[in-house]
Amino acid sequence: MINAILSAGITGLPELYRRGEADAVSVTRCYLDRITVLDRHIRAYNQVLADDALTAASASARRWRDGKPLSEIDGTPIAVKANIAVKGAFWHAGIGAYRDRVAQQDAECVARLRAAGAVILGTVNMHEGALGATTDNVWFGRTQNPLRDGYTAGGSSGGSAASVAGGLAAGALGSDTMGSVRIPSAYCGIVGYKPARNAISLDGVIPLSTTLDHVGVHARSLTDCALLAAHAGDRRAITPVDVAGLRLAVPDWRTRVETPDFIWKARDEAATLLLLNGMQRVASDLPTYQPGQARRLGLLVSEVEGLNAHAERLAQGEDGFSPDFLGLLRWGGRQPATRVAAAYQGLDAIRTAGTAWLEQVEAVLLPTAPQTAFQFETPVPANQADFTALADFIGCPAVAVPFGIAPDGLPLSMQVMGRDAATVLAVAACLC
Amino acid sequence: MINAILSAGITGLPELYRRGEADAVSVTRCYLDRITVLDRHIRAYNQVLADDALTAASASARRWRDGKPLSEIDGTPIAVKANIAVKGAFWHAGIGAYRDRVAQQDAECVARLRAAGAVILGTVNMHEGALGATTDNVWFGRTQNPLRDGYTAGGSSGGSAASVAGGLAAGALGSDTMGSVRIPSAYCGIVGYKPARNAISLDGVIPLSTTLDHVGVHARSLTDCALLAAHAGDRRAITPVDVAGLRLAVPDWRTRVETPDFIWKARDEAATLLLLNGMQRVASDLPTYQPGQARRLGLLVSEVEGLNAHAERLAQGEDGFSPDFLGLLRWGGRQPATRVAAAYQGLDAIRTAGTAWLEQVEAVLLPTAPQTAFQFETPVPANQADFTALADFIGCPAVAVPFGIAPDGLPLSMQVMGRDAATVLAVAACLC
Repeated sequence: MINAILSAGITGLPELYRRGEADAVSVTRCYLDRITVLDRHIRAYNQVLADDALTAASASARRWRDGKPLSEIDGTPIAVKANIAVKGAFWHAGIGAYRDRVAQQDAECVARLRAAGAVILGTVNMHEGALGATTDNVWFGRTQNPLRDGYTAGGSSGGSAASVAGGLAAGALGSDTMGSVRIPSAYCGIVGYKPARNAISLDGVIPLSTTLDHVGVHARSLTDCALLAAHAGDRRAITPVDVAGLRLAVPDWRTRVETPDFIWKARDEAATLLLLNGMQRVASDLPTYQPGQARRLGLLVSEVEGLNAHAERLAQGEDGFSPDFLGLLRWGGRQPATRVAAAYQGLDAIRTAGTAWLEQVEAVLLPTAPQTAFQFETPVPANQADFTALADFIGCPAVAVPFGIAPDGLPLSMQVMGRDAATVLAVAACLC
Repeated sequence: MINAILSAGITGLPELYRRGEADAVSVTRCYLDRITVLDRHIRAYNQVLADDALTAASASARRWRDGKPLSEIDGTPIAVKANIAVKGAFWHAGIGAYRDRVAQQDAECVARLRAAGAVILGTVNMHEGALGATTDNVWFGRTQNPLRDGYTAGGSSGGSAASVAGGLAAGALGSDTMGSVRIPSAYCGIVGYKPARNAISLDGVIPLSTTLDHVGVHARSLTDCALLAAHAGDRRAITPVDVAGLRLAVPDWRTRVETPDFIWKARDEAATLLLLNGMQRVASDLPTYQPGQARRLGLLVSEVEGLNAHAERLAQGEDGFSPDFLGLLRWGGRQPATRVAAAYQGLDAIRTAGTAWLEQVEAVLLPTAPQTAFQFETPVPANQADFTALADFIGCPAVAVPFGIAPDGLPLSMQVMGRDAATVLAVAACLC
């Protein structure tokens, strides 16, 4: 039964429920049992809400028995990143200083999922303050990549991706400022979708950068991801689109982002698949975009806005902020006004140029990350977000899907971005 | 003939040309003669390009005689704000430090207008660096309001508005960061239109704030204004739209912006006119928007970005920057990183909320300015941009049209903003 439940993901659960082969209680219990056994090692969860989950699952099971489910995701067990408010749960964004803070109400995205019948299994680990991509958290532990021990699950939504990849949740909510949903999804071999800016509300999410943050979703399949996103607020995610004839850009960033050849080779294979699906390849790029330079602008903005986000707490003392995290925030805060403004000006110019670019093509195909998951002890690559950050700067939808296996045996991932959510997801579906 | 030429504006010139009642040379000469006689006092122009204008006019006249005009604006004499590049003309943005700089090529908007046959009469005065709204310029003189001596023409595009209002040009290009096209248009009793962000290219415009600047147009009628905007790049400006049934918001900002009652009374009359045209009034507002607070955010961003814009020149010395202008830039530059970031965050939140608001209604009707033109010697009102800046923050189209006369005998102006240029202009047309 475990296999049937795991392979049902999100989209397949209603079939099990309708047939009476499982109900929300047995499915929730299956995930809770797996958490008990496996999460001791994976450490995806910060807090498991077993009782609440089972109560919600019972209610869901009753609705399905009565033939009155609230939605297609009624009875779907999900995990929620620790910066997104779940009423009654600890809400700390991976920062020690907030470890005792309890959310007084659900974030809007959580409330929407709950209203659709989703079962909240618990909150999951993240890189401290969402500013980083290893989820090696000094306060809440190191989340392991479920696919390989001793390797990072990525971040900042590392717990979200690991919980889904490890079969500890059917789906998860994450947040993405420069790639924090898509990068861990890539490293863990699952699907990660970052909608257009504000397509899913940020109400009830502890900000890193209010100007760049997005809420996103993780799941084991693209259809699962789209369904979850739609119920979290991005209704456009489940609109069918025919990709035949749509213009596809396959930009060559070999000289801009240091990336092994096997990743570019996989990317070219992905492009071929899209052309076989009737898309039309056009020579189109954003030639002015320098990913490394843009990343530094995004980081500076995140650091200064992060300092603003935590200013109130920091005024009471610096306990509960790691030296690494605090160092980044303080560094941002020390920069001169002109440099900060120049960062915003640079990002604004990118948004303008990027938006114009996405009027010329319906989809852009790029790798998700310039490498696969790496060992905790190796130096953290600086360029992890160099393919993902652009979609945050533009504010456009982007999705990362698993696409083959690297020579090291770890999953590869391709990313599709474009101006329209439904189109982006339909294009990515051709790769799954 | 002068009256026929002036009342032809822009839209009426082809009729004169076709009938042979005037040609581009006689029309250009008429404007140049008026400049010679009247601009000694009004001081709208920084540089009159009489020879170039007459050469261009001759070519235009020949094209009309041959029945091959380049466009409906072929042979239209216009003025260009001094921060917009006109090849071969001084290009200084009203800043003394740049007084000897000659533009090496046309700004994109100027090139487009020239390609359509427009005749560039010269460059016109502006508030120093576009940061202010009196056009009382210590380097290039004080531009008088053509309607009343000793009164400001407004700013920062004061020369643009005064040249059009004084009959010294058929139309003009200006720029608008928080209201710099619409405010002087209001004070001078003409139409001022600020398109959506980047609808008219900013290439070749000396920036104040790269994140807030817009190019806009001034003319004596709404149709003139739309035609000029369309040829400058905003093609959407001349699309016909039926306003019947469209949703109109008439927000009550009496407690938010100190404004005399006669302005609100005029605004209510304008609303009545729009309802008589079949629009549907809906109770809708942006209740979170605090104009005074938002203005300070926009000013800080403009000051720091202005400092960035002029950093290279300032590194060589501060000569040619007035103490007032430099003081504002330097003040911005001294602010801490967190305060600068908070300003961008605040404007970003306004853009998000404002964009959502403009999905709920097709048009918003507000006054253009909280007062009429004022005397140079009186204190400059701090709240001049409190009705106009929102459209710059959102990046949406907005147009100011003359609407009646205030008790002091000076023109009143109403502003229409919305998400779509053609709709905004069609709604405003009901007030003309």
